[in-house]
Amino acid sequence: MRQDISRRSFIGQAGLAAGSVALVSLGGCGSSDSSTATGPKATDFPYEKFIPAGYTISPSARSAIAEAGYHGFWEDGCCHGVYSGIMSHFAKTVGAPFDQIPLNIGGFGGGGIGYGSICGALLGGVLAINNVVADPAARGAIMTDLLRWYEGNAFPAYVPAAINSAEVGTTLDFSAANISALQSVPNSHLCHASRTQWSVKNGVAAAGMDLYARCGRLTADVAAKVVDQINAYLATKSYTASAIDAVSATCLGCHPATSTTEPVASGMRCDSCHADKVTGHP
Amino acid sequence: MRQDISRRSFIGQAGLAAGSVALVSLGGCGSSDSSTATGPKATDFPYEKFIPAGYTISPSARSAIAEAGYHGFWEDGCCHGVYSGIMSHFAKTVGAPFDQIPLNIGGFGGGGIGYGSICGALLGGVLAINNVVADPAARGAIMTDLLRWYEGNAFPAYVPAAINSAEVGTTLDFSAANISALQSVPNSHLCHASRTQWSVKNGVAAAGMDLYARCGRLTADVAAKVVDQINAYLATKSYTASAIDAVSATCLGCHPATSTTEPVASGMRCDSCHADKVTGHP
Repeated sequence: MRQDISRRSFIGQAGLAAGSVALVSLGGCGSSDSSTATGPKATDFPYEKFIPAGYTISPSARSAIAEAGYHGFWEDGCCHGVYSGIMSHFAKTVGAPFDQIPLNIGGFGGGGIGYGSICGALLGGVLAINNVVADPAARGAIMTDLLRWYEGNAFPAYVPAAINSAEVGTTLDFSAANISALQSVPNSHLCHASRTQWSVKNGVAAAGMDLYARCGRLTADVAAKVVDQINAYLATKSYTASAIDAVSATCLGCHPATSTTEPVASGMRCDSCHADKVTGHP
Repeated sequence: MRQDISRRSFIGQAGLAAGSVALVSLGGCGSSDSSTATGPKATDFPYEKFIPAGYTISPSARSAIAEAGYHGFWEDGCCHGVYSGIMSHFAKTVGAPFDQIPLNIGGFGGGGIGYGSICGALLGGVLAINNVVADPAARGAIMTDLLRWYEGNAFPAYVPAAINSAEVGTTLDFSAANISALQSVPNSHLCHASRTQWSVKNGVAAAGMDLYARCGRLTADVAAKVVDQINAYLATKSYTASAIDAVSATCLGCHPATSTTEPVASGMRCDSCHADKVTGHP
């Protein structure tokens, strides 16, 4: 939607083939990091050009990122967990400029920006994707695919290697043997809807230790998904989003964004919020 | 919602009184920016401690930020407009570390993250607030207040000093004399809902030049609002969000987040999406 109105791309970097820029590691000047006059700088956004050709996140690193995401949730929420888990890996393995940007910006996103809006884990993933993928079209496809995947995925699936010390007093069984019994599909990318449907399925509150234990594992699930997306993109420098669900496609058939009668500019599934429009409509 | 689960704050900076750190301006090392070994660095998040005591954004600067927001919309969308408009002002007036972080990260947020999710102008504002306000409680109050203000505000109000060259082919009259006739209240902080209700009121498409002209001005409106919030916060180092609307308060009376029966963890207004729950419910 945005792309179709952008006459000038503020971040266009077409002249720089991704991966073509060698990593520059310069010391001196008494600097304790890689922030130098000639090396990559945090202001050199977008950063994809600093990721070496052939870069990939290994399966073991993927697992470590997921585990870091889980523990990051208990540090400062779901958005922080996903963002810091992925970005700290880039800082360690790519270096500048990823080691020049703060890892701890994500605390604002938890609880759907504290408002029940977009799931903070998704927002942390989106912010990480934005740091890695320079091409607006591919970035958009990856973000849409992430949000759409979340809507239809059964959460939580992750089983932590170690339970965080802050996770105490759960009443449900989150063990590997039972985790699937706790899963449900959000049908929405919004925090409050995601929390409500899981809480209703499991008979627990939407604000309490069981819910937080779920969201900590969901944070790991989302982090791992974003890693898979980044790997897929970097391997091919392209990405195609999955299609919208059939019900919502039907909605948009009568309500396209270009209509002048009740137009809708949306990529999300419609029926989870607008349940009253599914039957007896119009 | 997030705060109540955070046992350890990853971004706790209680030992640093905001405004108590003098600005450090060091040259040398051949660096063309303020990235030095001893000065503020982009990794030194949160950044409030680098904002001088008594700092405020003047009325004329507020107007310039709003105008920059409008033109930024045409560069790379609404999220970019708000974020770059505000952050470039901090980079110019405060310097490091605000001049060490990229201004052009916001392109991803337009069109509700390209998905009809949270209005990108709001997301750009949230990201700017996150860079300025260190205290999680105040930050949460400001973000909630911003989203809640947006739900109930009549958009668009801003009249640009100069029409952007990309804005061509509008059919509606956006002049100062007529702008109020085009206004409507979104009742939702979500992009797709905000666009639909405005488009329906004005009989235009949700993807087209009239809509974009509206969103460009809305971008300026949101940027100016965030400036007002930042000024109010910096003047008092505190902020209180406005209360949720009466209808939604009634909803949450039966569906509090702490309930184990259909709990809802949300700060947004309920009835704009769940219109079927307003009458004949339960």
